[in-house]
Amino acid sequence: MKEKLTVVKVGGAVVEDEAQLSRLLADFSAIEGRKVLVHGGGRRATQMAARMGIETRMVEGRRITDEPMLEVVTMVYGGLVNKHVVASLQAAGIDAVGLTGADANITLSHRRPLKNGIDYGFVGDVDRVDGSKIAHFIEGGVTPVLAPLTHDGHGNMLNTNADTIASEAAKGLAEFYDVTLIFAFEKPGVLSCPDDDNSVIPVITPSDFEHLKADGTISGGMLPKIENALAAVRAGVAKVVITKATAIDGSHGTVVRL
Amino acid sequence: MKEKLTVVKVGGAVVEDEAQLSRLLADFSAIEGRKVLVHGGGRRATQMAARMGIETRMVEGRRITDEPMLEVVTMVYGGLVNKHVVASLQAAGIDAVGLTGADANITLSHRRPLKNGIDYGFVGDVDRVDGSKIAHFIEGGVTPVLAPLTHDGHGNMLNTNADTIASEAAKGLAEFYDVTLIFAFEKPGVLSCPDDDNSVIPVITPSDFEHLKADGTISGGMLPKIENALAAVRAGVAKVVITKATAIDGSHGTVVRL
Repeated sequence: MKEKLTVVKVGGAVVEDEAQLSRLLADFSAIEGRKVLVHGGGRRATQMAARMGIETRMVEGRRITDEPMLEVVTMVYGGLVNKHVVASLQAAGIDAVGLTGADANITLSHRRPLKNGIDYGFVGDVDRVDGSKIAHFIEGGVTPVLAPLTHDGHGNMLNTNADTIASEAAKGLAEFYDVTLIFAFEKPGVLSCPDDDNSVIPVITPSDFEHLKADGTISGGMLPKIENALAAVRAGVAKVVITKATAIDGSHGTVVRL
Repeated sequence: MKEKLTVVKVGGAVVEDEAQLSRLLADFSAIEGRKVLVHGGGRRATQMAARMGIETRMVEGRRITDEPMLEVVTMVYGGLVNKHVVASLQAAGIDAVGLTGADANITLSHRRPLKNGIDYGFVGDVDRVDGSKIAHFIEGGVTPVLAPLTHDGHGNMLNTNADTIASEAAKGLAEFYDVTLIFAFEKPGVLSCPDDDNSVIPVITPSDFEHLKADGTISGGMLPKIENALAAVRAGVAKVVITKATAIDGSHGTVVRL
């Protein structure tokens, strides 16, 4: 029987707000057993870019990452946000270790080719996550904190979406653990009425998703999140939960499963 | 018999220049056996601070680290420089992992108290390096790349001099390995005539150091470097070599020993 492992992904809005972050870290500390934290940091990167006179350009919610912006996200995700989270977890008694995809060659990616004529720049699409490497860290007693950065194996860091890092890491770890993947964000789950927090859809299977997509219940930024979730369960992740950042114990929110 | 381990410290000037960095990484790759790289990054931090409108203040060669400057060094040392070095080493076939003192709680420090009335701010004086943790990484097959950042155990990152990180790490690892510590910088060694690169002093023992200090041969920034080196050999590090960044195989330069 495999050991249980929980992968929690939190967005930038949570890790960038001290009150929300300390609540989250307390909740994360309370999760029993082995665990991994994946963080974003996009708002902080946008602020930092502005301070440096670098303009942020987004296309369909994804950051265009030219060379100056790559420097910004490498600094902000890999340095500022990651080390703040790691030091805060250490203070909470969790022996965290911050990792990008380049560290221990955990996540190799390739630069995204032009898409509909759009050059996303130094954005990495994941080729493989080395789950055995992450497992080695975990079995050594440390808790990995993954930044949304990967590398191409030729010396370049690449900017990779944090939801993607979370689902790819969960998939890579499913060979070794009984993995639950938790996407924590500002809503209590996937909602059938976007303005009604009481309209959480409790379970979404692949066929549910087709219906919900067809009738327009699910749209916009929620589509890639659920596609990521379904890809994870198809690749052997036991359970994916989409839930509020204040409810990461997995008992609330929307469960995505086969 | 203990395994051999080489700890190489390189300053910011080397890691910030692409031509020097790639030469260094090739030389570092050629070092046989277990190894650790420690890097600086001060010039890059000063440049980044200037871009953000933050003034750099130095006292006796040490950076005054107020809160905005702590953000800069956390970003630049922990993110920009560290990940660039790690990704470059990965490209050179070395399975590097970038670590600050907060990561896996490797290096705990405390904020430096007022010194001669000077408040250095968020500067950390090292309390202990957990050599067994670093050894666990090394025995797992990865090569640690240490950034000059530590933490205080209460959630704060602290700025710590890279020479200090190198000698403290070497001391912490001396329990487990036969450690050679190499300080690589722009000169071929400790010089008896500062302007003559052919005047390398081949060996410095503690009593040599007292003479060289008394007669003024060694002064300024070289004093703390040699004090660090002597502290390391007194704590069980087999050999310390002060040498040029293009000669890190340890066969040239000044050997500091008991």
